[in-house]
Amino acid sequence: MTINVALLGLGTVGQGVYETVISHQEELYKAIGEAVRIPVILIKDSCKNRKINGGVEVTTDFNEVLKHPVDVVIEAIGGCEPAYNYLRKSLESKLPVITANKELLAKKGKELKKIADDHQTQLAFEASVAGSIPILHMIKDYLKVNRIQRVEAILNGTSNFILTTMREKIQSFEQSLAEAQRLGYAEADPSNDVLGWDAFYKTMIISDLIYNEQPDWNDVVRKGIDQVTQEDILAAEESKEKVKLIAALSRSSNGQIEASVEPLRIKPDHPLYAIEGVNNAVRVKTDLAEDLVLSGPGAGALPTASAIIEDFVALFKNNKSIKNNDPVPLGGY
Amino acid sequence: MTINVALLGLGTVGQGVYETVISHQEELYKAIGEAVRIPVILIKDSCKNRKINGGVEVTTDFNEVLKHPVDVVIEAIGGCEPAYNYLRKSLESKLPVITANKELLAKKGKELKKIADDHQTQLAFEASVAGSIPILHMIKDYLKVNRIQRVEAILNGTSNFILTTMREKIQSFEQSLAEAQRLGYAEADPSNDVLGWDAFYKTMIISDLIYNEQPDWNDVVRKGIDQVTQEDILAAEESKEKVKLIAALSRSSNGQIEASVEPLRIKPDHPLYAIEGVNNAVRVKTDLAEDLVLSGPGAGALPTASAIIEDFVALFKNNKSIKNNDPVPLGGY
Repeated sequence: MTINVALLGLGTVGQGVYETVISHQEELYKAIGEAVRIPVILIKDSCKNRKINGGVEVTTDFNEVLKHPVDVVIEAIGGCEPAYNYLRKSLESKLPVITANKELLAKKGKELKKIADDHQTQLAFEASVAGSIPILHMIKDYLKVNRIQRVEAILNGTSNFILTTMREKIQSFEQSLAEAQRLGYAEADPSNDVLGWDAFYKTMIISDLIYNEQPDWNDVVRKGIDQVTQEDILAAEESKEKVKLIAALSRSSNGQIEASVEPLRIKPDHPLYAIEGVNNAVRVKTDLAEDLVLSGPGAGALPTASAIIEDFVALFKNNKSIKNNDPVPLGGY
Repeated sequence: MTINVALLGLGTVGQGVYETVISHQEELYKAIGEAVRIPVILIKDSCKNRKINGGVEVTTDFNEVLKHPVDVVIEAIGGCEPAYNYLRKSLESKLPVITANKELLAKKGKELKKIADDHQTQLAFEASVAGSIPILHMIKDYLKVNRIQRVEAILNGTSNFILTTMREKIQSFEQSLAEAQRLGYAEADPSNDVLGWDAFYKTMIISDLIYNEQPDWNDVVRKGIDQVTQEDILAAEESKEKVKLIAALSRSSNGQIEASVEPLRIKPDHPLYAIEGVNNAVRVKTDLAEDLVLSGPGAGALPTASAIIEDFVALFKNNKSIKNNDPVPLGGY
């Protein structure tokens, strides 16, 4: 049998998903016991040149997408609209949805989860936080009995790259931002990253997961790295410290959720000190497991596709997964 | 309803499990929708003083254990026998087993998994590798489509503590070992740790998990830290390097599994460079997720209990897990 995927969006992440589904057919078959196909892709600009095989319908009209025999929707558009509308319609059609969309999850996650519940389907979103690092699954599946006391994290690879470059090359914020843009690590309009919004959204998603609620957004400190100067970096270095954009989350003794995103100086023995460049890392302090740190690439086509595809497998693995040594039919994909 | 646990062993880890089950009743109930009780504990020495509540039978006879109405067995004895015999009998009685026993898993894991399969029950062993770090679950559940290219890890907290202390306090292997023993990080007979056996067993467990087989043990380089001198540490430091006991695992192009455990010099930009003291860390390189690193406490009562209890929840979560906000009955445990 075949599982049919509707792919929404064909930017960096969408292209990564498309290529991974083609290149990892054998692994997918072993994991879920089915072939996986992408019969339809939703794009924004029909004039762009694309590397898509024959047999795939590429459309700019979402209504065309759901006319295909689709089993699951993967969303890689980003932003609030039109993604929200598409995901709502997909869930209402009982289709499971996998998304990497942090802004949408932070703003409408609760609502989308309710729509999914109401229609006996599922919403998976590991890829929305920290690239390929399975931090949400770790918290949700393997820290169920642990009491989580505090989370500290580097969640924005662009900001971390800029801060790392400012320190290593002794250059200004503006020079380092320009370098990040040249390398494709920062967008033409970098405000979402450098003003701290991206890390803020991800922090809200983690808050939803751990506490089942978010703090009042007005009570959250959100500072980006745009005000960090060369002098700040040098002053930190004199004390062997580094400046990092740190997202923090905890619950105070009166039950209030306390969250912040801001550039902070951290010491060499801090577990996030060694996290450089576009990497992300999350430190989770708990009463039993104590101090866990997960790190890895925070963005990029394949790492984000990795989180999406592993979510896909988690959704469908109960179909009939194959034992490691069973033969895999190689034809017929 | 109640889930009844038979606890085998009441050393550091067993005591940690016992205390966690008592202190985390509410979290357990939320996670699995049942109360959890330990009606019977198997011990070795009936003359030792123990902090055990009334209503728990403490016995030195394994046959007495299975006369109780038991739903699951948690093994915290360690070593090959008599643990193997107890676990075999438990699995043959269709009881799921949770264990932290790396030596047993490395030597008899395949056999025990087969017994579990044959009797439609389960064997869970996250706690056998890297303390509270859910590295086995991450590999098994969230890197199913990823092609794992290489694993590098610090898997023995005792050795890492000794190496860290030798460097920080500029003292010999013998002095640092004595300090580890004073602090309870090393046993009276430390050979299992300092000769590399402990890290070796854990590497074999990871090999079983990733490749579904182990390399021929005779082909595996296994060196401990007992031959590391102060001079080695100082020479490394001069190049800003550190000596770490590194376990490595990969598959060569001809399909052969290559594994080693040995002290190596690593550079400051290596992701295991910052791992100090009794901590463990595992780096997994894959084609999609790229370079993931998980770190945390590699041993200790509560971290190991954490992995055991989270395995327990994973086994029983499908009973009827409770939503975050549902009320929890507080009486009647």
